[in-house]
Amino acid sequence: MYKDFRSDTVTQATPDMRKAMLEAVVGDDILGEDPTVKQLEEVSAAMFGKEAAVLMVSGTMANQTAIMALTQLGDEIIVGEETHIYNLEVGALAALASVQARPIPSYSGCFDSKIVKKFIRNREVQSPVSRVLCLENTYDLNRGYPLSPAYQAEMAHLAHENGMSVYLDGARIFNAAEALQVDVKQLAKDIDALQFCLTKGLAAPFGSLLLGTKEFVEKARWIKQRLGGGMRQAGHMAAAGIVALKTMRGRLQEDHANALRMAKGLAGINDGLVDIEQVKTNIVQIEFESVGKDAAFITEALLKQQIKVKPISPTACRMITHWGITEQDVDFAIETIRKIVK
Amino acid sequence: MYKDFRSDTVTQATPDMRKAMLEAVVGDDILGEDPTVKQLEEVSAAMFGKEAAVLMVSGTMANQTAIMALTQLGDEIIVGEETHIYNLEVGALAALASVQARPIPSYSGCFDSKIVKKFIRNREVQSPVSRVLCLENTYDLNRGYPLSPAYQAEMAHLAHENGMSVYLDGARIFNAAEALQVDVKQLAKDIDALQFCLTKGLAAPFGSLLLGTKEFVEKARWIKQRLGGGMRQAGHMAAAGIVALKTMRGRLQEDHANALRMAKGLAGINDGLVDIEQVKTNIVQIEFESVGKDAAFITEALLKQQIKVKPISPTACRMITHWGITEQDVDFAIETIRKIVK
Amino acid sequence: MYKDFRSDTVTQATPDMRKAMLEAVVGDDILGEDPTVKQLEEVSAAMFGKEAAVLMVSGTMANQTAIMALTQLGDEIIVGEETHIYNLEVGALAALASVQARPIPSYSGCFDSKIVKKFIRNREVQSPVSRVLCLENTYDLNRGYPLSPAYQAEMAHLAHENGMSVYLDGARIFNAAEALQVDVKQLAKDIDALQFCLTKGLAAPFGSLLLGTKEFVEKARWIKQRLGGGMRQAGHMAAAGIVALKTMRGRLQEDHANALRMAKGLAGINDGLVDIEQVKTNIVQIEFESVGKDAAFITEALLKQQIKVKPISPTACRMITHWGITEQDVDFAIETIRKIVK
Amino acid sequence: MYKDFRSDTVTQATPDMRKAMLEAVVGDDILGEDPTVKQLEEVSAAMFGKEAAVLMVSGTMANQTAIMALTQLGDEIIVGEETHIYNLEVGALAALASVQARPIPSYSGCFDSKIVKKFIRNREVQSPVSRVLCLENTYDLNRGYPLSPAYQAEMAHLAHENGMSVYLDGARIFNAAEALQVDVKQLAKDIDALQFCLTKGLAAPFGSLLLGTKEFVEKARWIKQRLGGGMRQAGHMAAAGIVALKTMRGRLQEDHANALRMAKGLAGINDGLVDIEQVKTNIVQIEFESVGKDAAFITEALLKQQIKVKPISPTACRMITHWGITEQDVDFAIETIRKIVK
Repeated sequence: MYKDFRSDTVTQATPDMRKAMLEAVVGDDILGEDPTVKQLEEVSAAMFGKEAAVLMVSGTMANQTAIMALTQLGDEIIVGEETHIYNLEVGALAALASVQARPIPSYSGCFDSKIVKKFIRNREVQSPVSRVLCLENTYDLNRGYPLSPAYQAEMAHLAHENGMSVYLDGARIFNAAEALQVDVKQLAKDIDALQFCLTKGLAAPFGSLLLGTKEFVEKARWIKQRLGGGMRQAGHMAAAGIVALKTMRGRLQEDHANALRMAKGLAGINDGLVDIEQVKTNIVQIEFESVGKDAAFITEALLKQQIKVKPISPTACRMITHWGITEQDVDFAIETIRKIVK
Repeated sequence: MYKDFRSDTVTQATPDMRKAMLEAVVGDDILGEDPTVKQLEEVSAAMFGKEAAVLMVSGTMANQTAIMALTQLGDEIIVGEETHIYNLEVGALAALASVQARPIPSYSGCFDSKIVKKFIRNREVQSPVSRVLCLENTYDLNRGYPLSPAYQAEMAHLAHENGMSVYLDGARIFNAAEALQVDVKQLAKDIDALQFCLTKGLAAPFGSLLLGTKEFVEKARWIKQRLGGGMRQAGHMAAAGIVALKTMRGRLQEDHANALRMAKGLAGINDGLVDIEQVKTNIVQIEFESVGKDAAFITEALLKQQIKVKPISPTACRMITHWGITEQDVDFAIETIRKIVK
Repeated sequence: MYKDFRSDTVTQATPDMRKAMLEAVVGDDILGEDPTVKQLEEVSAAMFGKEAAVLMVSGTMANQTAIMALTQLGDEIIVGEETHIYNLEVGALAALASVQARPIPSYSGCFDSKIVKKFIRNREVQSPVSRVLCLENTYDLNRGYPLSPAYQAEMAHLAHENGMSVYLDGARIFNAAEALQVDVKQLAKDIDALQFCLTKGLAAPFGSLLLGTKEFVEKARWIKQRLGGGMRQAGHMAAAGIVALKTMRGRLQEDHANALRMAKGLAGINDGLVDIEQVKTNIVQIEFESVGKDAAFITEALLKQQIKVKPISPTACRMITHWGITEQDVDFAIETIRKIVK
Repeated sequence: MYKDFRSDTVTQATPDMRKAMLEAVVGDDILGEDPTVKQLEEVSAAMFGKEAAVLMVSGTMANQTAIMALTQLGDEIIVGEETHIYNLEVGALAALASVQARPIPSYSGCFDSKIVKKFIRNREVQSPVSRVLCLENTYDLNRGYPLSPAYQAEMAHLAHENGMSVYLDGARIFNAAEALQVDVKQLAKDIDALQFCLTKGLAAPFGSLLLGTKEFVEKARWIKQRLGGGMRQAGHMAAAGIVALKTMRGRLQEDHANALRMAKGLAGINDGLVDIEQVKTNIVQIEFESVGKDAAFITEALLKQQIKVKPISPTACRMITHWGITEQDVDFAIETIRKIVK
């Protein structure tokens, strides 16, 4: 069987989740009558200290719905250059929300507040309005930097004093909370709206929760319906999500330990392969330039040994740990890479 | 327990579907690796005689994705005045697809081809391009008219000779096929792209299939992802869908028989209540004006007797039969209405 | 030389307007520094009793800008079936404003308030928000019905009590004011925003004024810039517009008298040709069915006699009077048509 | 009287242009009947060696129309970070064209082809399609770098071999041609579509020409109409444009000489004020940090001496030369700045 390090999106539902799908008490959620969906939304809102939550099909739908709810046609939003919302959502910001993105660089996942300020527009007849500052935590799906509550607060303050909202794509926010050893409420505190995924580290089949004020969530439900996100008996999925929230958060430290083990093991082969300092959560970025190999070669060689990794540049690959990956798998991967690069 | 005649969207998964969700073999469908999703897509395409199919979250998403795939920004499409795509998709045609709707009347669910022709635009500098003719079968969610292959062929011919595509919203196409006693292939034959729902009469929790040429479906997958419709381990849902397609189509005749029984029973109370001639599938529209009652009063009175119906105008209600409704439920509803209107 | 009855859009600038273009004092209007543009905007706002006005390139730009300023992405607006904004603006409502149109019928230019009410949406999760009721005065560019202040007030009241704005496309509002013998202030009074054209009866080369509250006009300036409507030294055109407003309104009664003369003359040939009762402004619609001719034949036959008319259906043509058309031209046209149809 | 160095957009029509407006032979351009507009379009197409041209209201409208004609909803385009199309068109790329911008840095106005390549997307389900590479020549409205035919050819080649179109915003292309001493045909040769402005150095009141293949221009006319850019008797403006093309191109060298004179004069005061090497056309960027002044102070102090400049950062201003600025004005400006900074 393959050891799949490409992404934590490949995680499959646990037996408990499968059982929960079978047993779920459901109703027509478009009519607002699915008790299990309601339960998941309430549990999520409480967990993050927000007024309300709505179940979404995916992180992409949650992100785009949030932007549509927070902007008007033709606004501009400030986003990180490496973010999912700008790079991996099929141009939806422009295509659906009719919003222009202003991508800015980050430094280990953090924006420089001077750069943010520089790109907040003055209200002039030739300029769009800067309306939302978008954060992502963990930041960069090839890096996974956890961002601190203090940094988020600084960004939120900057946005708010300029009349902007601050939105957080928290697809992997539980990884951030685990790495920083803080409650997710701390990471939601200064944020106007955010989403987290039930997939990835939590291993549910699909679904994300979008959170914010009651008014925001009300608007989001309406936009979700327009995007075709209305699911009838969604409670089957919500049931898996409730189990995911209960049972999977606690074990994310294993994934982080495995990622660090991987990083250290690879650095032991050649210290150009990995920058250990940057491995803070469950993502390891490996640069094969120092050993004179390219990413396609490595990927193929690993595949022959039943190991899947994701090439992310001509010379780099990404490996992500998750509940389908054990310590033994990590050690096997390290040894296999050692043989390939030698 | 309530007898819920409001809609067939309230149908809940059968035990077999629930079991299928539990046992599903799944993969990451965004990576194209979910075998159960693939199986459902292949079964669906074969069943309708189309090249390819893609699983969608909902009928709304399927409809809007199809329109986006078949049009360019600023085109016009011709739609029926009473259709779901124009009335119940939160303005998505304009909001997301940036397409203008030209609504036209129907007569027992059919367009007059003279009216269609009148609204196909000449190519002029002040006019949008008429790009798609949209059908719906069964037509009108408050009537459920089944439309014949011959009518569909006529409309398709009209569209094609004017350089337009023809799209079919077949949310309840199995009801149409059952009522007309034709194979769904006959109803898909002249159509460029269509969708059907796994919910409603088929009772799966959620999901729709969008079908057409390989090229169309390829484009649709990409638009689906943009809308946030990408689900990771969607195979759990697909598994329920496969069971739905296998086990639920055959019993739609019961729903039609129950609807007709309802219509006849109500006409026996007062022949102004129902136009029996128009009850061809599983939908009964009841007009209470002839008995001097309004819809709100009736709805409330029925609710006290554990019967749910949907008011659709100040004096009319809709009742839909489905696998949660038995012959006994129908008889009970008739008797209850008899008492209320007397 | 041709007598061009196709439209009043073919009117050319008077010598006074041409002289005004030459002598105009101008500045950079995008910087807000063109004194002649400012003068035209102020004169216009005062004339209609509105807080502010902005010069637009065209009626189309004014209409679309207004809708964008009054709506949010995905809203619905109620418009007349025969209106310019729905039929002759290249689908811009959907393409640019991302707004869905709900076209409704009119009766001699007036909406039935019951029909308007029927199409104002309830706030439900599957429905767009009904945001603007659009009027047009004179209504229907093939009819030119003038609509009274009382009717407009009734529609405005209906809109406002349902939380909607009311917008008026007053491309030919001076014709309406002349026909009704009212001040344009009366026609602007209950309206949230409106536009009028400097072209058509007023004969300026191009340009329209969009009027409303200061806040609305501020937003409109910004949208105008986005549409590419920012003109640098627009004062040359504004100068012609100022002359148009001063010198051309008073003579619209001649156009109306000429249109009525035309209608009566044609009715004298065959009373099926024209419905005299419907000729209230400068537009005459002629139905050639009663004399067994089609519009293409008539149009071509007239062209040979140096008369241009516009075919608007297989059997009907439109003739519009304007300052390039004299009483003699009308009589010549009547006699020519008499010969052709005999 | 003020010496206005803020921009060349403040240039006013010459007496010959004003006379041309007065005498213009015009027609209804929306009906395609304005002979002067046609003449300007033909002259322009011939001058640039393109199949066809269409008169646009503004550079913004030309740019946005081109992008809409070259893309499909949801595509991505690659643009320079400092460009007008991305920064000063009110977010129209997203708001109207529904296209996502990927801004990239430039080096003295040139893109690094490695960076361009890096951002051309692979066709993947989560990615928009990279559809257009946008150039600007002269590049950067605060710098005015002229870009060579060879560079443009390299970029065009890169775009074309990746299935992308290449579009050129040539608002100041005559300045580039003059600086490089090449025919504008050379600068249009490898480009799929481009626009140039009649304003700025050419001093016409407003208007831009959009050029490309016949098919492209046909589509552009239709989009222009949708944007509200249809002007009826546009020939008045076209007449001024024809004079501008005939009489103003030859004198751009004066503006360049004046800009260089300004740069040298200022460098003589303090060589940190201006980077002479970068002054290639009619734009001079002045950095007051080296003399310890901020831009607001300088701008105000100059205004008192009847000199207008544009602050573009907290410490920098821009000065542009044009036909309203003489050698004496330049010398006066240098001397005034000398006094202020001392």
